[in-house]
Amino acid sequence: MTENESPALKVALAYHRAWTTHNFEAAMTYIAEDIVCQAPAGRLDGAEAFRGFMGPFVEIITHSKLIAAFGDRTTAVLMYDTDTIPVKDAPGAECITVEDGKITHMRIIFDRLPFDAARRAAPGG
Amino acid sequence: MTENESPALKVALAYHRAWTTHNFEAAMTYIAEDIVCQAPAGRLDGAEAFRGFMGPFVEIITHSKLIAAFGDRTTAVLMYDTDTIPVKDAPGAECITVEDGKITHMRIIFDRLPFDAARRAAPGG
Repeated sequence: MTENESPALKVALAYHRAWTTHNFEAAMTYIAEDIVCQAPAGRLDGAEAFRGFMGPFVEIITHSKLIAAFGDRTTAVLMYDTDTIPVKDAPGAECITVEDGKITHMRIIFDRLPFDAARRAAPGG
Repeated sequence: MTENESPALKVALAYHRAWTTHNFEAAMTYIAEDIVCQAPAGRLDGAEAFRGFMGPFVEIITHSKLIAAFGDRTTAVLMYDTDTIPVKDAPGAECITVEDGKITHMRIIFDRLPFDAARRAAPGG
C-alpha cells in the first residue's frame, strides 16, 4: 500500500519526518500516551519513557535516509539509515502499530554495539 | 501487497521459512552469487561470504517468529524475532532486493551487543 492507502504508514512517515528533521515535539504528537515500545535495551511503557529513550537520540543525528517504508491499515514498517555524532551509518528498523492516528506500539531494532564502543572510547566513558 | 502480489516478498518469505526451519541449503538457493549484504559488522560480497555470516547464526536458532512482512515488485522488508542459544529475544530486520527470483541485496539489522556480551561471558570468551 502507498502512504495514501495505508493510514498506519501515513502516521509512521509523519512521525519519521518530524524526528529526522529534529522536530521532536512534533514527532511526539504521534505517540500515544500509553505506547509500548520494545527497544533493544528492553520494554518502555508510556510516552514519557519513550521520550527519555528517543529524545537524546534525535539530538545526536546528523543525517538520515529512508531505506524502505511499507504499511497496511494498522501496521507499518520503516527501515532507515542515520548518521549520528558518535556513530556513522547507524541503521534502524521499526514496526509500528497505529490506532486512532497515534502510535500505540513500536518494535525498534538497531545495533547498540557501536554506540557502546563509542561510549567506552569517550573521555570518562 | 500480499505474497501473491509481490514477487520480492514471495522470495523473501521462502528464504525466511527455509533458514528459520534450519534448511540452510534450501535458503541459500534464493541467494544470488553476487549478493551484496550490508550487515552490522560491514559489507559482505558474494554468496560464500554471506554463507559464512548467516550459516553459523542459523545453527544457534532455537525459535523464530515473523513480526511483519511487506513487499512490492522488487523489494521486501521482514521483521522477525528469534531466540538463539546464547541470546533470547534477538530480533532482526531485513530489507531485500530481488532480481530474477534471487536475493541480490540485503540490508540486515540486529543488535550485536547481547551476542558480544554472551561471548565475553562464555568460558574462554
